[in-house]
Amino acid sequence: MPIYFLSDFGCADVYAGVVRAVLEHRAPGARVIDLAHDLPPGDVRHAAVQLYAAVPYLEEGGVVLAVVDPGVGSARRALAVRGERLRYVLPDNGLITLAAELDPPQAAWALDPGRYVEGPVSATFHGRDVFAPAAAHLAQGLPAAALGEEADPEGLVRLPLWTVEGDEGEVVTFDRFGNAITNLRPAQRPEAAHLVGRRIPFRDTFADVPEGEAVAYLGSAGLVEIALRGGSLREKLRLVEGATVTLHGPEEEPPPLELD
Amino acid sequence: MPIYFLSDFGCADVYAGVVRAVLEHRAPGARVIDLAHDLPPGDVRHAAVQLYAAVPYLEEGGVVLAVVDPGVGSARRALAVRGERLRYVLPDNGLITLAAELDPPQAAWALDPGRYVEGPVSATFHGRDVFAPAAAHLAQGLPAAALGEEADPEGLVRLPLWTVEGDEGEVVTFDRFGNAITNLRPAQRPEAAHLVGRRIPFRDTFADVPEGEAVAYLGSAGLVEIALRGGSLREKLRLVEGATVTLHGPEEEPPPLELD
Amino acid sequence: MPIYFLSDFGCADVYAGVVRAVLEHRAPGARVIDLAHDLPPGDVRHAAVQLYAAVPYLEEGGVVLAVVDPGVGSARRALAVRGERLRYVLPDNGLITLAAELDPPQAAWALDPGRYVEGPVSATFHGRDVFAPAAAHLAQGLPAAALGEEADPEGLVRLPLWTVEGDEGEVVTFDRFGNAITNLRPAQRPEAAHLVGRRIPFRDTFADVPEGEAVAYLGSAGLVEIALRGGSLREKLRLVEGATVTLHGPEEEPPPLELD
Repeated sequence: MPIYFLSDFGCADVYAGVVRAVLEHRAPGARVIDLAHDLPPGDVRHAAVQLYAAVPYLEEGGVVLAVVDPGVGSARRALAVRGERLRYVLPDNGLITLAAELDPPQAAWALDPGRYVEGPVSATFHGRDVFAPAAAHLAQGLPAAALGEEADPEGLVRLPLWTVEGDEGEVVTFDRFGNAITNLRPAQRPEAAHLVGRRIPFRDTFADVPEGEAVAYLGSAGLVEIALRGGSLREKLRLVEGATVTLHGPEEEPPPLELD
Repeated sequence: MPIYFLSDFGCADVYAGVVRAVLEHRAPGARVIDLAHDLPPGDVRHAAVQLYAAVPYLEEGGVVLAVVDPGVGSARRALAVRGERLRYVLPDNGLITLAAELDPPQAAWALDPGRYVEGPVSATFHGRDVFAPAAAHLAQGLPAAALGEEADPEGLVRLPLWTVEGDEGEVVTFDRFGNAITNLRPAQRPEAAHLVGRRIPFRDTFADVPEGEAVAYLGSAGLVEIALRGGSLREKLRLVEGATVTLHGPEEEPPPLELD
Repeated sequence: MPIYFLSDFGCADVYAGVVRAVLEHRAPGARVIDLAHDLPPGDVRHAAVQLYAAVPYLEEGGVVLAVVDPGVGSARRALAVRGERLRYVLPDNGLITLAAELDPPQAAWALDPGRYVEGPVSATFHGRDVFAPAAAHLAQGLPAAALGEEADPEGLVRLPLWTVEGDEGEVVTFDRFGNAITNLRPAQRPEAAHLVGRRIPFRDTFADVPEGEAVAYLGSAGLVEIALRGGSLREKLRLVEGATVTLHGPEEEPPPLELD
């Protein structure tokens, strides 16, 4: 079974590499597949969107090790979660919020490293000492019940963040290209999106507008995205997370709002 | 057979990770080897130089999956190409230009995902939905002809970029250390290079000049490079791509041009 | 046997990827595990700390390929080193300094690529042409003696950098989160650390102080670290490497030094 590894550890230090070494050592034969490690440090919201984008493409039964954990060492719980398709090892800080929409938690366990880790556990690097050994344990087919007490899968911490089928949502994060990712999952194809007073046409892809123009489209994660063709929308509009986005069909189009 | 994966997807999002997951799922047992993922976004020219630098070191018969694709969703073709040594899956945007000098295309196919992908294909993430399934297909030893119509290997898009055996060329890109990479592949060893009015001695390596001085040398890809020992030549001289570089032997040395 | 690969090659160029391709080609079946590749360019000191942090978690008998090599092409030696637990292939520039405290060198060889590499060796990319073939050689179980002349394991270049059990040390580097890593490995738990005139409480972890406050703690590598909870201490205090850090117990606490 593959272990899919996602973190904000970066590649300028050996944090992610040491976790990989622990996984390969404790789960010989498991394939460790890196999802990404340069996630913005401590940004649980961005990480939750990334996990949402990845989940449909991960192999059934695989183990997702996701460590974006600004509260390491605090009282936040460490979890193993069994979804319908995948298993997750992650901090109980809301990281699972959006993935849980696609792969609802069926069971959960609060990790108790005293039960499955020999030797000391550091207070600041649970990725290496708590989460990785638990992920290796699951990848070897050992029972989750050995990792800690069972917990209520309905009681996991959730971010105030969800996808919306309606026509009013918000910018939830940005990708490396400066494209804005929203929480909108429209039931039918809109004609346009409105964002900070601008009307932006909805098309299939950025190639459908000229260089330098903004375009809304259904992104690869199934969420509406808004991009600037050939540039960074985030920088151009100085966008921040939380900006309101509304979708409009042809019949309900409001009067034009062009400001520039 | 290994799959060599090169992209500009970065590591702050799961784009590259999801492609890896798709490759591992569809081509079980294939070794996926990352070449690089933080290539400058949309910079086909830099990517073409990187592919040129890598090709001689890739295993014969391997599959190169190269996705730097600013035109995703436009009418640009997606290709499978069979070279003399390697196979390539990439957009038809010139990315193959320099690699083709080392490994000339023998046959090509225009990818038609309707023939080999079940389910929907996104308009913005062909790396995941079009290119990765094609690369996995080839890595499993299945025939390229199943991927789409045959295309003319002479008709691939080429960048206006080629390597030069003579003595006048240009800076084509920079590496992370700020070293300038040129398109010059000299037939015999020069004495010096000229760049923006400066005469720069040609040596075996940067260690042959004192700290803080510029030096030209034959880089590891077989192209002339110019570096500042212990610093970034790019920043020091505010160099841009396209700057003219000339090479000089002892007999043809022009009068000194030192400006500083 | 795994090959653990650490470098400052970055991910914007194919340098690290080409080394991976060479390793996979020359040592078929070896597992190549990336430790990190975005180490600060040419910063041997940072790399030495990273290697120190990784060594205890690497599998006995594994091969560590570590290439941070600002002197490539100079007279510095290239080495294979046998420690008590691991084997190392790296430049003789002090990179091994701290790892050697944990895994003392038992034997060493000066790499002579003429003995084990067919074909030319570039003057600027020894990672690909000298170090990777040597690491692959060792990972296949072949004898180190075939790689070059034996060298004195006591005669390796060392940085003026060592860990300290006492109570006066210095900031040796920073991680991506801006946390300061010191060379202090205290024999008993201190009460506080002093850094640039500030008294900083010693706690188990950053979660033990409020957001925005500084805290000292025993980091995951066994060294004292100092962090700003929820921010970058490095930026906040404009810290540089080499800043003095002292540790204090309750009985020896000096008069308060608060400056702000």
